[in-house]
Amino acid sequence: MHLAIASITPTAPADVDLAARYSHVRARSVALAAPLSPEDAMLQSMPDASPCKWHLAHSTWFFEQFVLGAQPGYCAIDAHWAYLFNSYYQSVGPMHARPQRGLLSRPTLAQVLDYRAQVDTRIALGFERGNFDRVSQQQIELGLQHEQQHQELLLTDLKHAFWCNPLRPAYRDDLRPTRPRVASAAGPLRWIAGAEGIVEIGAARWPQVARQFSFDQESPRHRALLAPHALAQRPVSNADYRGFIEAGGYRMPALWLSDGWTQVQAGNWAGPLYWDADGVREFTLGGMREIEPQAPVVHLSYYEADAFARWAGARLPTEVEWEQAAADLPVEGNFADDDFLHPQSDALPRTADAPRQMFGDVWEWTSSAYLPYPGFQPLAGALGEYNGKFMSGQQVLRGGSCVSPRGHLRASYRNFFPPSARWQYSGLRLARDA
Amino acid sequence: MHLAIASITPTAPADVDLAARYSHVRARSVALAAPLSPEDAMLQSMPDASPCKWHLAHSTWFFEQFVLGAQPGYCAIDAHWAYLFNSYYQSVGPMHARPQRGLLSRPTLAQVLDYRAQVDTRIALGFERGNFDRVSQQQIELGLQHEQQHQELLLTDLKHAFWCNPLRPAYRDDLRPTRPRVASAAGPLRWIAGAEGIVEIGAARWPQVARQFSFDQESPRHRALLAPHALAQRPVSNADYRGFIEAGGYRMPALWLSDGWTQVQAGNWAGPLYWDADGVREFTLGGMREIEPQAPVVHLSYYEADAFARWAGARLPTEVEWEQAAADLPVEGNFADDDFLHPQSDALPRTADAPRQMFGDVWEWTSSAYLPYPGFQPLAGALGEYNGKFMSGQQVLRGGSCVSPRGHLRASYRNFFPPSARWQYSGLRLARDA
Amino acid sequence: MHLAIASITPTAPADVDLAARYSHVRARSVALAAPLSPEDAMLQSMPDASPCKWHLAHSTWFFEQFVLGAQPGYCAIDAHWAYLFNSYYQSVGPMHARPQRGLLSRPTLAQVLDYRAQVDTRIALGFERGNFDRVSQQQIELGLQHEQQHQELLLTDLKHAFWCNPLRPAYRDDLRPTRPRVASAAGPLRWIAGAEGIVEIGAARWPQVARQFSFDQESPRHRALLAPHALAQRPVSNADYRGFIEAGGYRMPALWLSDGWTQVQAGNWAGPLYWDADGVREFTLGGMREIEPQAPVVHLSYYEADAFARWAGARLPTEVEWEQAAADLPVEGNFADDDFLHPQSDALPRTADAPRQMFGDVWEWTSSAYLPYPGFQPLAGALGEYNGKFMSGQQVLRGGSCVSPRGHLRASYRNFFPPSARWQYSGLRLARDA
Amino acid sequence: MHLAIASITPTAPADVDLAARYSHVRARSVALAAPLSPEDAMLQSMPDASPCKWHLAHSTWFFEQFVLGAQPGYCAIDAHWAYLFNSYYQSVGPMHARPQRGLLSRPTLAQVLDYRAQVDTRIALGFERGNFDRVSQQQIELGLQHEQQHQELLLTDLKHAFWCNPLRPAYRDDLRPTRPRVASAAGPLRWIAGAEGIVEIGAARWPQVARQFSFDQESPRHRALLAPHALAQRPVSNADYRGFIEAGGYRMPALWLSDGWTQVQAGNWAGPLYWDADGVREFTLGGMREIEPQAPVVHLSYYEADAFARWAGARLPTEVEWEQAAADLPVEGNFADDDFLHPQSDALPRTADAPRQMFGDVWEWTSSAYLPYPGFQPLAGALGEYNGKFMSGQQVLRGGSCVSPRGHLRASYRNFFPPSARWQYSGLRLARDA
Repeated sequence: MHLAIASITPTAPADVDLAARYSHVRARSVALAAPLSPEDAMLQSMPDASPCKWHLAHSTWFFEQFVLGAQPGYCAIDAHWAYLFNSYYQSVGPMHARPQRGLLSRPTLAQVLDYRAQVDTRIALGFERGNFDRVSQQQIELGLQHEQQHQELLLTDLKHAFWCNPLRPAYRDDLRPTRPRVASAAGPLRWIAGAEGIVEIGAARWPQVARQFSFDQESPRHRALLAPHALAQRPVSNADYRGFIEAGGYRMPALWLSDGWTQVQAGNWAGPLYWDADGVREFTLGGMREIEPQAPVVHLSYYEADAFARWAGARLPTEVEWEQAAADLPVEGNFADDDFLHPQSDALPRTADAPRQMFGDVWEWTSSAYLPYPGFQPLAGALGEYNGKFMSGQQVLRGGSCVSPRGHLRASYRNFFPPSARWQYSGLRLARDA
Repeated sequence: MHLAIASITPTAPADVDLAARYSHVRARSVALAAPLSPEDAMLQSMPDASPCKWHLAHSTWFFEQFVLGAQPGYCAIDAHWAYLFNSYYQSVGPMHARPQRGLLSRPTLAQVLDYRAQVDTRIALGFERGNFDRVSQQQIELGLQHEQQHQELLLTDLKHAFWCNPLRPAYRDDLRPTRPRVASAAGPLRWIAGAEGIVEIGAARWPQVARQFSFDQESPRHRALLAPHALAQRPVSNADYRGFIEAGGYRMPALWLSDGWTQVQAGNWAGPLYWDADGVREFTLGGMREIEPQAPVVHLSYYEADAFARWAGARLPTEVEWEQAAADLPVEGNFADDDFLHPQSDALPRTADAPRQMFGDVWEWTSSAYLPYPGFQPLAGALGEYNGKFMSGQQVLRGGSCVSPRGHLRASYRNFFPPSARWQYSGLRLARDA
Repeated sequence: MHLAIASITPTAPADVDLAARYSHVRARSVALAAPLSPEDAMLQSMPDASPCKWHLAHSTWFFEQFVLGAQPGYCAIDAHWAYLFNSYYQSVGPMHARPQRGLLSRPTLAQVLDYRAQVDTRIALGFERGNFDRVSQQQIELGLQHEQQHQELLLTDLKHAFWCNPLRPAYRDDLRPTRPRVASAAGPLRWIAGAEGIVEIGAARWPQVARQFSFDQESPRHRALLAPHALAQRPVSNADYRGFIEAGGYRMPALWLSDGWTQVQAGNWAGPLYWDADGVREFTLGGMREIEPQAPVVHLSYYEADAFARWAGARLPTEVEWEQAAADLPVEGNFADDDFLHPQSDALPRTADAPRQMFGDVWEWTSSAYLPYPGFQPLAGALGEYNGKFMSGQQVLRGGSCVSPRGHLRASYRNFFPPSARWQYSGLRLARDA
Repeated sequence: MHLAIASITPTAPADVDLAARYSHVRARSVALAAPLSPEDAMLQSMPDASPCKWHLAHSTWFFEQFVLGAQPGYCAIDAHWAYLFNSYYQSVGPMHARPQRGLLSRPTLAQVLDYRAQVDTRIALGFERGNFDRVSQQQIELGLQHEQQHQELLLTDLKHAFWCNPLRPAYRDDLRPTRPRVASAAGPLRWIAGAEGIVEIGAARWPQVARQFSFDQESPRHRALLAPHALAQRPVSNADYRGFIEAGGYRMPALWLSDGWTQVQAGNWAGPLYWDADGVREFTLGGMREIEPQAPVVHLSYYEADAFARWAGARLPTEVEWEQAAADLPVEGNFADDDFLHPQSDALPRTADAPRQMFGDVWEWTSSAYLPYPGFQPLAGALGEYNGKFMSGQQVLRGGSCVSPRGHLRASYRNFFPPSARWQYSGLRLARDA
């Protein structure tokens, strides 16, 4: 499948940095799967989640389909993989039903790893031989960003699957221990005034306008109007959220969106997804752990984030407010590479009046529906299905989490999930009108 | 239930106009039910819809609960009605399950009409005696607006129910015939440039700021930023939409939002809700009728409106764009009072370069999710549940339809439905970036 | 539709008794509907139940389809009725979906009563003119039996529908009061030894072999083998069943069939269908009433009947055991015509050692699956669908109930329902091995 | 858990043959799993099926629970296994939800095999030390019979799971090839007259009455009455069944039980479960294979078997008829040990007038509902849940299949499945009234 991107020089020298990045990102996925048994790698605990093995294969198929497949005379490694490992690209062809991904015992994990190795060899050869023109290099870049997204999903999906096992197994026993609480952390909430008036948000369109990668949905960079407002300096903590629970938040319909209240009752929700009924311990990728009061609360649906904010006399930020506040901050925080794989209490050096923990730790629900920016154009061809077709029924989350790969994020990054989703590392930060 | 509205003079002379309006609006509901048998009035064809009898009772309960119930020492007409006819006001008490409203053979239609008469008598007495302070008068105003909304729902729900009967009965046989096509109508699409830059939309908050009624969700009036754009001069017509169908629009996944494509397949959608398979006839409140090519297409989901716009190389307008274009237009069009009860081809006098059929005929899906305006405050007390708690998972529609009561609408009016809803009189108008 | 019944004399004099019976049975249906509003008559509270109006129309259609329709040159009263009022006769043509019967506001109750009158007129004319040959007379007989079955269903379905209304309306306020308890009734259980060895059960095939009507499923009369056993002299009473509840019967999985236990948990079953949570009052066709301890317990599923029997150290009777015990008893008991419309404590004169209340009061679940007798032949043609195609997944009930029409029953009569059904007047009688 | 079996000598010398049988049967299960990857062994394609790994663990837990657990002072290998590997014994304690068995990546296959080895070691030690009294020896016997049942389920469940994989993998590539057709096989159907009058069927109760093992549900041996009838000499073949398909059998509602017709339409059934749409090839444990016309048709629901019989002018046999015909036949046929793992055309030596292929090849649906025999007593204690609680909603199958272990079956053996089940090796043999 060739991705038509007009007005780009068609050939270019092989990019040495890109090749190195390719190796690095691809190896990272394999490393994430290393602690898993073949059985672990096949787990699919709900239709929304995918098996680790499928993530490994699908992210590989993406390179085969969109990079290798664009090479003249390319012959597929196995004709079946396109059907099994296509996720949702209708333009490319039919695909295996999503809820049945967990039924693919064949190919085995070993076969999938072999498939990865074969594609990696072919890509490496392509780099060596200078086969990749600028378009192909862009597809590789996109493929790496795509793979990093699946690295995060691999962990969130696995966490849910392990949680479904009454043994509550740990993904890893050697994760870094919970960061000791800092005296100054998570103190009384401070509010930081945001910009007002006309601001610019979004990313310049890649690759046509900007060399810096961003997804199509982050562009175009455009003007937006901000009313006077303030953001909380830190995310809502476990201690804050426990206050909401203890005040009866889950039993007060007036706090909830109508759809949220329906979910609370249908699912008997009484706390964040992975909290024990006692509110003392929670399930983590390192097994059951004590809940750290100062750390950001995590695994909330949009409904819960919204209800908490209403209870607190505040609201969720819009994505414009969030991005404006984050625009000048360094993209630093607790990411997957920090090897906690769980939100931690604040530890970065203090900058007076700057919001803290904007990146990493927890994705922050915004009050913005996931919709196209003014002038949005999806990528051309099949890759136009990457983001644009999901622009209904979802909310934007910002900032990344403790299972996001470092280097994958930026201020303009837009994540999106349905308001009922809880299995991502999702929390919130309060906002208010000024 | 007393609605706390601060800083309002507590007593006021009875409003003669309000009393007249009360009689008029209330009589209109009864008139709408007049062509129905008691059985017709009990029909509930899906959980989203309600029986006519329930609409008649619920809109009456609204006055008893929020106006009469606020009078000192008020004694309810029947203690059961609060449970049976509360819709979704959790703050007021528990309620009968929505999907079971069609199982209420008792009270009978005659008893419900009697309940209406009793409440009307008590309200009339209240007017006579000057019992209603300003707050109560405001609740009456709100109750009338509420009743007008239910007048529209009464017709949309009934249409769906009749369509479920293989006999396809007509609601009325004496509706006005389809308006003859005007030579000039529905010609090639013309585009009308919209305003750009900072504009003001929304309504001043009623009753605190403005005397003119509006719902809480329309306020506050606030600034918004518009990028250069244009709106189509007229809604999409049946002829336009038939082009989409004939071009295979319902079989091309690339045109559809992902959730929409899932619906198309699950529901075997191949045209608007009430169209015959042959595309020649459609079900109307007057029974099966020939589809008028020049009339606005109606009974589309958001998914269909969005897919059509993509196919046409355009997009849906935002609600800001729509409201800005409508702000200076007279609120005229084909409303329920015109007695067509079906969209008609354009017949209003020409105003060069003004958008046409903005009000009446069909609700127009916008690309805007139904979310709070900056600074939104719901009504205080139980009535705060009226609109605000539905602000997730829905899209805004604008302009009103051929079954909306004349006088009920305005440019700032926000209707909202889930993207899959098709049983409302919903169509679309195209927009594009300039 | 002509029912092919071979070897029957094709013409016969009009049967005066049959004409009288026709009038009587048909009038009874109308009388049963008399206390209902048109809305009541449209209620359908679950897919298993049908609206009263539909029962009235379907039983009429049966005569039009199978009797009048067999007359040369017959012209249907309304071409739509065949589609709307066919229940499940696939051989006759397609039909309206069962769960949507409650959505038929048209035809109205008045129209359905008019349809009844028209068919009755045509049938009366047929009788007068001697148009009905023996086959037609047999179809009329079958149609009357069929209508009597629907008279019972009309009441059971209506009871369920009224129970779904939080007002709990009474079908009639003028029913006979609960029969005063007789000192001797419902004393300690006595066992009555049954026949053993080879017995004969079933009915001779009508109309080929016997003049006495029976349904095809009751034939042929055939031999069966009985092991030594005994039957309880009376049905299980409310007092007996309360003992089971109080002993924790609904919380002990060991007492239940596996499917039954699943139902208990899924439905939170804690007592018979219409019992109040307090176990003191129950819903009846006369509204809420106090539970009479001596009366037979009613509205049990097969699972509950089976679990009770296991708890009591007994078992349910087989249908052979039941029929053998009933064969020589008069078909007397508390039927619909007695105007209780609820099971009553025993009041018939004592016959030493004869089982009591075998007919009327409550249908008695047997341990026999509903299967064909050896040599079973369904009726020919479309009427072969009447009974035979339901011979899977159901259990046999015997004896009739307090809402069965007097004269409709006999010892060989086989009723059948799925084991989870509770809305029929179903109870049980214990049996044991001797 | 101690199984109370009264009136049995409490101690007995260790049974050398039993120890050998134990080793043999247990090794067979492991051998069946040998061709599988760990991922294969975790597959659960529907709630009715279980993963191979779970079968291996559950059959092991059975010995630990009911044999080892009855030893004084026994200490469980892992306290979690009772929860994870209990199937449905409510008396023993709560259990993991059946539909979630496929989510148990931990314990891994290797851990489960280790669990098996540990239990085997403890059992072996028990044999050596003479620890097992007669009751324990009986529990071991029961455990081995139980394990053999799971050996069959392991294969049927795996076949379904592999069929859900679009790659259609083979369980084994080295199965015996399809047996060449014998000229004489599957000729025109011959009928063999059955016994009539009073016969005896069932097994004497084990272990109280008989030394020969049988399940509780096969007892007591009892008298039954047979009407004159005949059985087909051979099962229905693929060629026979293709005739039914080609005659439109799946499109003729008159042939079907009502519930069956609902299933045909809901599931778009058009042939046996694993047949290709072209009717030429079918999925087998050896992968896709050509359908052998002379071999017994397999993977039919009860509804299909019943509809075929009706189409053929015949009926299904009762279980009494079947057992009577099988009583004197040697238990020979195509079993799992023959290594076809698929029904084959007839190859046994001819015995004039004896029914053929009664054992092995395909389970034969009977017209008998799965109900207790007269005088049935379930095993005491928790093991009473083994069979008795499933006696509703299921039909009896007789004779065993090509995946049943040789030596596991007998003429009185009663298998049972719901009428909609198709994933077992189920076919049919015709019967008729004489």
